[in-house]
Amino acid sequence: MSEVEEVDERVSLDLLKHKMAKFAKERDWDHFHTPRNLLLALVGEVGEVSEIFQWKGEVPKGLPDWKEEEKIHLGEELSDVLLYLIRLADMCGIDLGKAALRKLQLNAIKYPAPNKYTQHP
Amino acid sequence: MSEVEEVDERVSLDLLKHKMAKFAKERDWDHFHTPRNLLLALVGEVGEVSEIFQWKGEVPKGLPDWKEEEKIHLGEELSDVLLYLIRLADMCGIDLGKAALRKLQLNAIKYPAPNKYTQHP
Amino acid sequence: MSEVEEVDERVSLDLLKHKMAKFAKERDWDHFHTPRNLLLALVGEVGEVSEIFQWKGEVPKGLPDWKEEEKIHLGEELSDVLLYLIRLADMCGIDLGKAALRKLQLNAIKYPAPNKYTQHP
Amino acid sequence: MSEVEEVDERVSLDLLKHKMAKFAKERDWDHFHTPRNLLLALVGEVGEVSEIFQWKGEVPKGLPDWKEEEKIHLGEELSDVLLYLIRLADMCGIDLGKAALRKLQLNAIKYPAPNKYTQHP
Repeated sequence: MSEVEEVDERVSLDLLKHKMAKFAKERDWDHFHTPRNLLLALVGEVGEVSEIFQWKGEVPKGLPDWKEEEKIHLGEELSDVLLYLIRLADMCGIDLGKAALRKLQLNAIKYPAPNKYTQHP
Repeated sequence: MSEVEEVDERVSLDLLKHKMAKFAKERDWDHFHTPRNLLLALVGEVGEVSEIFQWKGEVPKGLPDWKEEEKIHLGEELSDVLLYLIRLADMCGIDLGKAALRKLQLNAIKYPAPNKYTQHP
Repeated sequence: MSEVEEVDERVSLDLLKHKMAKFAKERDWDHFHTPRNLLLALVGEVGEVSEIFQWKGEVPKGLPDWKEEEKIHLGEELSDVLLYLIRLADMCGIDLGKAALRKLQLNAIKYPAPNKYTQHP
Repeated sequence: MSEVEEVDERVSLDLLKHKMAKFAKERDWDHFHTPRNLLLALVGEVGEVSEIFQWKGEVPKGLPDWKEEEKIHLGEELSDVLLYLIRLADMCGIDLGKAALRKLQLNAIKYPAPNKYTQHP
């Protein structure tokens, strides 16, 4: 980990979108980044995350018994999912941050908060 | 769409994380949000995105021929993937923004930029 | 379920392959069944299976506490995965039955049986 | 491929189910094969298949331009999906062959054949 500098800033979806765009452009990868190529790449990365969890049975929150290297590995695979997701939205012309805030509002309408719920939808 | 107010702000991963945490807490859903439950929910949402693309053959960037309602639907499903992903990382005790920036740095080391590439890894 | 006749026979991959081919042909769907279309359809169905399991926490073998209709629903979604998988292999020119038997042999070489294992790979 | 003998028989779901059960038993893996563990393993294998297709753009039927080793690799990954799917159904107490034939009948009712279709569902 010594080659990568520590970061501290608040990470926005826009920041990651621009970094991904720059990364692809510098490598002439734009023509690979069609919507369905990126979607399949995303599915591949979700598969990697699943492989990490597959033989573990139920896992408590915070992953208390995991080795540090396992958590780092998981962070890398979750990041891959995130980065392809952001890139996919970008290549589809969708403002993912705006869409996510709107979806949260729709969810709040669909599942009103006040009363206690005994069952998850 | 009239019930949901338009948003304009820069959306950070932290903002969405806190909104998801509040949303779950207000509905007593925290006990549902175990890592593997959230992972399977994420897989379910990736499936919804795939269903949107499944019979379309190759799709050009920007989705020029899609109806507005199809793009809105896609934005909702991509948002669901994002929100579960952020929640999953949170429940695993992983700082997703930090992990994503670090992963970008690792990718830059793995795939150096300067020279032109003719083939995608 | 009354409209569908009960079946009893030994079901082979070949039988299902031929039924899928006939089904697609009769509906002029062959042009939809490209490899990547079918793969995304498969991912969509895996998503449906995941949705069934997503909020349940760990589930014991045999699903003892599930309602009959839940098990029927699960059987339908697992079938959709199987049918798209068989069709995908067919459209890729791969003999799935032969490949599966060969993979079992490779697995047996990779994970020799005799001695007791304490850890899963 | 020299270590694995060629096979010729009609491969049934039952045959593969029994082979998987025997394989797991001989290695003391039965306790790993819970429904959700197997489902995540299945998702992992679907991810592997997706990785094979991810940067290729649209791919014609029969994969005419693929190298033999790529097709063999694809056959292995499709087999992994199949084997985990069959094992998952078995651990859920579901007769997958019966369910698949029934699902085909339901599909035939849902999408009647005779007339020509111009649009895929």
